[in-house]
Amino acid sequence: MLPAITRPTAILDSAAARRNIARMAEKARRSGVLLRPHFKTHQSAAIGEWFRAEGVTAITASSVRMAGYFAAHGWRDILIAFPVNWLEIEAINTLAETVDLGLLVESVETAGFLAQRLTAPARVWIEVDTGYHRTGVRWQDAAALRAVAQAVQSGPQMTLAGLLTHAGHSYQAASASEIEAIYAETVARLTAAREALAGYGDLALSLGDTPCCSVVEDFSAVQEIRPGNFVFYDLMQIAVGACHPEDVAVAVACPVVAVYPADRKVVVYGGAVHLSKEALSLPDGALSYGAVALPEEDGWGAPLPNCRVAGLSQEHGMIAASADLLARVSVGDVLMVLPVHSCLTVDLLKGYVTLEGERITMLGAAE
Amino acid sequence: MLPAITRPTAILDSAAARRNIARMAEKARRSGVLLRPHFKTHQSAAIGEWFRAEGVTAITASSVRMAGYFAAHGWRDILIAFPVNWLEIEAINTLAETVDLGLLVESVETAGFLAQRLTAPARVWIEVDTGYHRTGVRWQDAAALRAVAQAVQSGPQMTLAGLLTHAGHSYQAASASEIEAIYAETVARLTAAREALAGYGDLALSLGDTPCCSVVEDFSAVQEIRPGNFVFYDLMQIAVGACHPEDVAVAVACPVVAVYPADRKVVVYGGAVHLSKEALSLPDGALSYGAVALPEEDGWGAPLPNCRVAGLSQEHGMIAASADLLARVSVGDVLMVLPVHSCLTVDLLKGYVTLEGERITMLGAAE
Repeated sequence: MLPAITRPTAILDSAAARRNIARMAEKARRSGVLLRPHFKTHQSAAIGEWFRAEGVTAITASSVRMAGYFAAHGWRDILIAFPVNWLEIEAINTLAETVDLGLLVESVETAGFLAQRLTAPARVWIEVDTGYHRTGVRWQDAAALRAVAQAVQSGPQMTLAGLLTHAGHSYQAASASEIEAIYAETVARLTAAREALAGYGDLALSLGDTPCCSVVEDFSAVQEIRPGNFVFYDLMQIAVGACHPEDVAVAVACPVVAVYPADRKVVVYGGAVHLSKEALSLPDGALSYGAVALPEEDGWGAPLPNCRVAGLSQEHGMIAASADLLARVSVGDVLMVLPVHSCLTVDLLKGYVTLEGERITMLGAAE
Repeated sequence: MLPAITRPTAILDSAAARRNIARMAEKARRSGVLLRPHFKTHQSAAIGEWFRAEGVTAITASSVRMAGYFAAHGWRDILIAFPVNWLEIEAINTLAETVDLGLLVESVETAGFLAQRLTAPARVWIEVDTGYHRTGVRWQDAAALRAVAQAVQSGPQMTLAGLLTHAGHSYQAASASEIEAIYAETVARLTAAREALAGYGDLALSLGDTPCCSVVEDFSAVQEIRPGNFVFYDLMQIAVGACHPEDVAVAVACPVVAVYPADRKVVVYGGAVHLSKEALSLPDGALSYGAVALPEEDGWGAPLPNCRVAGLSQEHGMIAASADLLARVSVGDVLMVLPVHSCLTVDLLKGYVTLEGERITMLGAAE
């Protein structure tokens, strides 16, 4: 049953989240690869335990602070999948003393910095740009790959673990087959980069965007996968074909504060500081900041057709409402908003309430 | 001097913020209107004291929770400028018992709800839509205005205080003269709405978007102004002509983690969870998630030409960099990002460090 709420609240369908985790764990087992889930999506020690129950022992974090949080909650194998931030070297060294730490390097400069400043052992991954063009050494630049590998191996505390990429361009895919093509290309490029590093040891390959990890069945060409968003999914993942609406495990319960039938508009308490300004372009060209569903006894219903969060102020959400929704909703009701990008939405809400009424905290939550 | 930072941090130029506050307070005094600043921008008890030093005694909040936070920090006259959320009636009653509380109503239904459920006195403002079309009774709908006023006056605990509007469309203005035209229209429409309520007592008029309050000099046609963003300003306010770059009082210090000269790109630790996904369309059509400045001895320099935050991941900020910036920056440095919309950015960072190194907390900050 939906818990009583008074203000915008992340409602977590824990059964759906646990199904998502179990499905990914099973796929990884079938392929014989390590599932190193990215915990930047949920950022919660309690939700981390649901992964542990599926046999997960190695995780990915996106910041030193997040790695420290999960280290404090018993995780012992943590990869920080973000280029090493030199300014946090003290905290990195503290972590390296206590956990099996993985670091991401994509330049000779940073490898050289770590060679001088790292005071405890760490496994180092070279970040490879296989087409997303965010960060990383270009996959086809064999000289640069070798230079970074050489610099890593020169550091007394560093072990070169392998090559890592994030194929984030899969988020822009138009279909499952396009995602499969991106996956195949990513694997081919990572493999080519590894071939350029023959002689640098037995290097693992790591990839892990949620679209590819959701659509692809056989990961046996790589050694580990690092999906994160799949624990909750969201509208973006529905749009690219990575999940179905019933897989979305989090929605924001928003009180209705105004209804304007003549404008076909419903205003909820739930704005940019709750949902984030991440927007999705719908097929008709309209921008959506969230889909709208009705609360139900066991959670929420399917996203309502012809309804969307069409605008956001700091605290207001403006819903473009169908006649059907207008006929069903009044001030004082609660509507459920399915997030465009669940990672950013739950980061704003800093905690969850499950359908069973349990409060779940996360990194950065105020007391 | 810029304090030492290790991760994305809101750096506050307190002198600039205090200048912005003093300037607005002086303008309000000259016009003989009450300055009831919106505290949703800074959300900080410590910064609230800077307003108190300028004689401010009445404030605006955007949520019941925020009103409670400032009530706990000694504020005694608080208007919640958001349509009453029925689901928080208990907290509203608690507040009404302890402070001089102002509430916002824009429907007969909500006025009727308060008539039944409010257990302590509150001043009630009718929200009027003067052209922004977010929430409120349409200014020209005299029958609806009278129906809401009647319903408010029927409540034993409610006193009808006046008419309130937010002319948020001023944020889309192209020039100062366009802002002045919006202000004149807003005043004329609020005044017409008040004329429709002749016989309902001596009703005050309240308005207060930052563009209008920054550009207009004479507010004597209204009784109170409620600007909020002006304490920090941001790129949006520069774009509409409401402030100059040197008035921007907050910037996000971001560590540089990667530099790609061939791509004219610098990657910083500072992503969507630090800056927000609020974007500004630049004159050339490009989207900006922030301007870039170099740290300086006493803060930061002017925004660098031909540089912008061109993309954001959860933790990464991708800066499209000029040749000049590329020549000056290395991994391990810090760059300053001026926010597109400071309200959303500081809400994410949940605290500040001043140029003097003082840490300032805010609502919702974790310990």
